[in-house]
Amino acid sequence: MKDNKGLALLLDLYELTMAQCYFHYKKDAWATFDLFVRTLPQSRSYLMAAGLEDIANYVRNLRFNYEEISYLRKQNLFSRDFMEYLKKFRFKGDIWAMPEGEIFFADEPVLRVTAAVIEAQIIESFLLNTINLQTMIASKAVRVISASAGKGVYDFSLRRTQGSDAAIKAARSSYIAGFNGTSNVLAGKLYRIPIAGTMAHSFVMAFKQELDSFLAYSSTFPDKTILLVDTYNTKKGIENAVKIGRYLKEKGCRLLGIRLDSGDIVAWSKLARRMLDRASLSFVKIFASGNLDEFRIRELLRLGAKVDNFGVGTHMGTSIDAPCLDVIYKISEITDENGKFLPTMKLSKAKVTYPGRKQVFRILDKRQRFVKDVLGLEKERIKGRPLLIKVIDKGKLVYKLPTLNKIRDFARVNLARLPAALKEVYPKYKYPVVISKGLRKLRRNLSYQLERRQ
Amino acid sequence: MKDNKGLALLLDLYELTMAQCYFHYKKDAWATFDLFVRTLPQSRSYLMAAGLEDIANYVRNLRFNYEEISYLRKQNLFSRDFMEYLKKFRFKGDIWAMPEGEIFFADEPVLRVTAAVIEAQIIESFLLNTINLQTMIASKAVRVISASAGKGVYDFSLRRTQGSDAAIKAARSSYIAGFNGTSNVLAGKLYRIPIAGTMAHSFVMAFKQELDSFLAYSSTFPDKTILLVDTYNTKKGIENAVKIGRYLKEKGCRLLGIRLDSGDIVAWSKLARRMLDRASLSFVKIFASGNLDEFRIRELLRLGAKVDNFGVGTHMGTSIDAPCLDVIYKISEITDENGKFLPTMKLSKAKVTYPGRKQVFRILDKRQRFVKDVLGLEKERIKGRPLLIKVIDKGKLVYKLPTLNKIRDFARVNLARLPAALKEVYPKYKYPVVISKGLRKLRRNLSYQLERRQ
Repeated sequence: MKDNKGLALLLDLYELTMAQCYFHYKKDAWATFDLFVRTLPQSRSYLMAAGLEDIANYVRNLRFNYEEISYLRKQNLFSRDFMEYLKKFRFKGDIWAMPEGEIFFADEPVLRVTAAVIEAQIIESFLLNTINLQTMIASKAVRVISASAGKGVYDFSLRRTQGSDAAIKAARSSYIAGFNGTSNVLAGKLYRIPIAGTMAHSFVMAFKQELDSFLAYSSTFPDKTILLVDTYNTKKGIENAVKIGRYLKEKGCRLLGIRLDSGDIVAWSKLARRMLDRASLSFVKIFASGNLDEFRIRELLRLGAKVDNFGVGTHMGTSIDAPCLDVIYKISEITDENGKFLPTMKLSKAKVTYPGRKQVFRILDKRQRFVKDVLGLEKERIKGRPLLIKVIDKGKLVYKLPTLNKIRDFARVNLARLPAALKEVYPKYKYPVVISKGLRKLRRNLSYQLERRQ
Repeated sequence: MKDNKGLALLLDLYELTMAQCYFHYKKDAWATFDLFVRTLPQSRSYLMAAGLEDIANYVRNLRFNYEEISYLRKQNLFSRDFMEYLKKFRFKGDIWAMPEGEIFFADEPVLRVTAAVIEAQIIESFLLNTINLQTMIASKAVRVISASAGKGVYDFSLRRTQGSDAAIKAARSSYIAGFNGTSNVLAGKLYRIPIAGTMAHSFVMAFKQELDSFLAYSSTFPDKTILLVDTYNTKKGIENAVKIGRYLKEKGCRLLGIRLDSGDIVAWSKLARRMLDRASLSFVKIFASGNLDEFRIRELLRLGAKVDNFGVGTHMGTSIDAPCLDVIYKISEITDENGKFLPTMKLSKAKVTYPGRKQVFRILDKRQRFVKDVLGLEKERIKGRPLLIKVIDKGKLVYKLPTLNKIRDFARVNLARLPAALKEVYPKYKYPVVISKGLRKLRRNLSYQLERRQ
């Protein structure tokens, strides 16, 4: 599941038809493609890169097996020699990318492929799909983290993510962004993410009395019980939880927490905190859930809600206010007959792209805080930290894929260095991304050339 | 991939902790759960059921293997006897569901599980995730179909769906809803959906001249070429396409189409149509793409765009204006000590549920058009077509899973019988769903009982 094998046909048909044309007309041509986000969603002021591990594994394992080739043959589209080529297909190009957990902005390539144009084209759909999902979720989750101001945050999104892949990647991406764990057991197993959970309303309803359900659960998990208190009457639910808390305490155990999933979370959490404290149960944590996101969490905390941990589901796991990114994959150079790379760009209105092999340079101040980025040509001498690093060299992985916890640490450091104004739930500041002199000049000249040529 | 094996741990941790409690306290208790959508998204006036095939396969193949049990053991949460139980786990309950392609509304169970409470609980997360994704997409796609007024519509969403599972299911769900095909080759292979594609801007840019790229492609696929005409200058692009069209015609071939992906689609399509017709190329189709959805398609057609086929991507594949459904899974009855089913319900404010074992009855007029639905108790005598049918009986599939084309036909028939006012892009009519006398009475009495009991 993590190796991304068997996904060779997860591509748009045109990748293969174009590949066959390239095979016949431009077999030896190489090209560079940039993967970037054209414009940020309205409520995003920055993005957090995620998805590279999947891409590295996909690219290394990409093979077309017998069954896949047979299916393609039946389409009456492909030539025999192209099918023979696909049978032996290996990705042998280079990939430069920002590490997962890096922060980036519109127009900045988060990933750059230089390969035989036919290979670069065949991997396009998977690359876009992967960066789109995982970066979108990490970028939403990190906003939840900022709004939560140090409180615990858990991914509860599984039941309403867009499918199983999204569920697993939502757990992974939100953990990178700083979440404390997930309810998704499979994601926990695959990525060693801490798993967490409470109980459902149906559980409470399966017993005659609410208290019976609380007793059953806390007897089964005496040190790991979080009681859901709002199935019938929230006040009585909290009273019942207090009873259980006292009972467990007598036995030398600790009730872990209670959960509020509906109603006025501010009022109920304040009441619950008072009732628990009065019963000498100040160690019992209060969890809140139910359509939470960064906007709602910020509001709850502003109003003084006594919540220790948030369970965040659908809104984060679908990035509900921005359920896709404007990710694109654009050719920026291609070799001529002599194998020399020549820059290229798209001219059509409102969709003009930046030509040439580019790098993103981040300018930091003395305290390592982000000041501005420069989008320039790779060969330009620009001071600042280059953000794209070489991951795949001639098809081989030359980058040590970091552990999830390393990525998470890197994300935290990046977040700390990001201007505070960008981390607001309603940001009013736009981070400066400057186009370098060299790139501006190239674009001007090339635009003129291309217009004349067509 | 279609058998849904290996997904046993794709569940929320609490399903397993609750299951362990049930194992110790209510091992023999059976319960009924309803899966339904509490409220429809703002821009939806009806939903189209999808996802049942995956659920049927998942439920039948659900096993916890050695590796999964080992992982669970390490969590220090589960008892040895419960782990032994899980090793031998089989779903042995009943599932009633609406067939895929059925139309349904808020509060109506689209699926109903009656099983040992422990089994019903363990399958919850997968059921919700599956119905959520596939029903959401089918329900968006069918709106696109209505707006397209008989034009061809193709799924181009792969690159920006929320992950690989969503990509595959978007192709399947949109095909059910009436789409003509998909660009997603893997979905085409898995589900025998027709696959389609054109060319990318990068392909045009990979050649010195636009015309060179058109020539290369049309020579490779002389009868299957759709030329993308807006890479540099759309007018010149259409002129070049006309040249290719004439050239192919001389050779006895037919240019399939041209594609417009940006700019003023109405104006460009009218111009392209005129230019093609003047060149005696009236058989050449015009494709449009680029952030299309039902709203935009309706507007394009209203303004007289000369478009024959629409490529619909991100907006459909993520259901962008409603990227999740308010799907829930609620217990409605549970057995007492004697094995007798007793109805139950949730009382907490704004989230009250309907108790008892229910059925949805659809009242049709003489011409088979939908008049209203009645949500009632299964045992009530209500005239009207019952929508929930038995799919799984004691763990065995007792329903012949229809082919995708059969489902598609069923969906088309249903759509034809739905009141026209509901099919508007901006619907102003709410379909009547009536609560039966028996159900209203049960709810009233039970609500009173439960309030007293707690």
